[in-house]
Amino acid sequence: MRLEDLGEFPLIQRLTAGLESRADVALGIGDDAAALDLGHGLGADQLLLATCDAQVEGTHFLPSIATPEEIGHKALAVNLSDIAAMGGEPLWALVSLLAPPDLDVAMLDGVYAGMRALARQFNVALVGGNVSSTPGPLTLDITALGRVARDRLLTRAGARPGDRLLVTGRLGAAVTALLAYTASSDHTALPAEAAAALGEARRAMVTPQPRVREGQALAATGQVTAMLDISDGLAGDLGHLCQRSGVGAVVELAALPVDAATRTLAQALGRDPLRIALTSGDDYELLFTARPEGVAEALEAVRAVGGVATVIGEITTVASGLRVRAQDGKQLALEARGWDHLRPHTTPANEPPDVGAP
Amino acid sequence: MRLEDLGEFPLIQRLTAGLESRADVALGIGDDAAALDLGHGLGADQLLLATCDAQVEGTHFLPSIATPEEIGHKALAVNLSDIAAMGGEPLWALVSLLAPPDLDVAMLDGVYAGMRALARQFNVALVGGNVSSTPGPLTLDITALGRVARDRLLTRAGARPGDRLLVTGRLGAAVTALLAYTASSDHTALPAEAAAALGEARRAMVTPQPRVREGQALAATGQVTAMLDISDGLAGDLGHLCQRSGVGAVVELAALPVDAATRTLAQALGRDPLRIALTSGDDYELLFTARPEGVAEALEAVRAVGGVATVIGEITTVASGLRVRAQDGKQLALEARGWDHLRPHTTPANEPPDVGAP
Repeated sequence: MRLEDLGEFPLIQRLTAGLESRADVALGIGDDAAALDLGHGLGADQLLLATCDAQVEGTHFLPSIATPEEIGHKALAVNLSDIAAMGGEPLWALVSLLAPPDLDVAMLDGVYAGMRALARQFNVALVGGNVSSTPGPLTLDITALGRVARDRLLTRAGARPGDRLLVTGRLGAAVTALLAYTASSDHTALPAEAAAALGEARRAMVTPQPRVREGQALAATGQVTAMLDISDGLAGDLGHLCQRSGVGAVVELAALPVDAATRTLAQALGRDPLRIALTSGDDYELLFTARPEGVAEALEAVRAVGGVATVIGEITTVASGLRVRAQDGKQLALEARGWDHLRPHTTPANEPPDVGAP
Repeated sequence: MRLEDLGEFPLIQRLTAGLESRADVALGIGDDAAALDLGHGLGADQLLLATCDAQVEGTHFLPSIATPEEIGHKALAVNLSDIAAMGGEPLWALVSLLAPPDLDVAMLDGVYAGMRALARQFNVALVGGNVSSTPGPLTLDITALGRVARDRLLTRAGARPGDRLLVTGRLGAAVTALLAYTASSDHTALPAEAAAALGEARRAMVTPQPRVREGQALAATGQVTAMLDISDGLAGDLGHLCQRSGVGAVVELAALPVDAATRTLAQALGRDPLRIALTSGDDYELLFTARPEGVAEALEAVRAVGGVATVIGEITTVASGLRVRAQDGKQLALEARGWDHLRPHTTPANEPPDVGAP
């Protein structure tokens, strides 16, 4: 059935039936606005966090690669990642749906199932939203709300020379998978080992795991000086952190955490996995800085919640700029060219910087 | 200059430069999420309100009719209207911009100028947002956050038989203006009096005034039993209120507040102004119910903040359904057919119900 055959209100009813709630949702979907109870622990010592991020078909997701459930998962995940990057606890989300009237309702059922499964996992209540008709591509625009104790808020500012630079999880898998699907060569013709690796990399691309537990655990240590999530690429987001903190940084290329599957797949595609890890977006890992004496505690805090983190470099003075130390020990300037959402993929600003060349 | 020539981060810089803030904004635009200070009066006796609404070019606004400033005004206004409908005070907003890369930057300058002017008027801080590229139409998706005292929250539920039905402001101007612009006849060929009326009606269409002061004043009286804003049309939104409250209603057709300009323009277009007032969306007035003994206080509360409200009917039992009393005293069933955002304009659900026919 198409959306226009079902109609707006039956659609909302269908997508939100039996929605899980939270004790602090005084009024959920169905009125002019949601009403959220601040009496449940969100007191004067807390800050409210608010962020929004949109996923556009054809730009952020491809229905030929991702299932509806995966599309829904990712649309919420990228927003929870932003709450995580502040050291916060996500609480509520609002979903703005921009959909072509001839879209199949079953597709949206899947999108909402994926979104609801992830919301359940992190105890997030979907409390509001909007449905609009658009002649353009399907777009999921989500606003996430959360909280953080005032003295635990982590921002992009706060890194100081001498701080160590760390990152959670593994880098580069999402973009390596995308390269496999979009390369001129046929991804179905990959060698068996690379094809298996694509399965793993694909999961990283379509169902990124927001580092919510890691972010809160890191904030609780008191050892982290700055944090953000990697959505525009490590080089670009490190640039944001350095700019806000008024510092420089040097990244150890060999230290970048790239898993075996991503290396295998990148090499089968004739690409440099470290260069991909340095520049690729869509990883949704947390990039953060800590005083040298706090590194062990930060690493242990991430491990304690089932995650992993890696030291990948050091913060320097702003005069030293942004640099990368290649495997041969040579330091090269690193351009902080992150993903620019408004530029075509082929312009210089979205071309991975050239590093590590002899 | 086109957006893709300027780039994402210079665009954000340009649109948000010198943005007015509020004392409770701990961290505004420029990090992964905004951080909002709940210590400034948003205590345990308060509820947080959250709502989102999108405006899509070609569906909700036409650049051939509205200026960029007016488009920005309306995109924020419809969200402030939802906060107003809960009796709330708007505090913060996040703006998600979905824009084609070849859009002229100057157009967005105008959109943001209109949005910022309205935000300033209601002391709302723009604290976050997102920019995404889309091949589809320009879309402004805004999330508004606000607060309301727990004991002043007004919802769609709560109307009881015997309550009076009231509405703020005037009805029908927005849709009458739209009819003038989209009628097959040339609106530039209207008689002089109707052309002047179109100027007034056009303002109602492109710069709706969110009834924020009226909503708070009404909530403060303690006399209002249910409230919502009219965005889908009086008949449709009254249907929502009655459904949530488990009641019926009768509307006095002759009591509908339609101003002289709207009457003049509708008649020049060969349309029935009262029928338009009953069914047209986009009015963004507040529809509310009050106990009979509280009506005078409610009317005075609206007047005290510079507004106007009118008694237009009465709440009945659910068994009586939704009815309209025509000028000749006859009662007719009123179908609660509001605007369905997913249906084409020509399907029965979006066709104004037939009322008042002899």
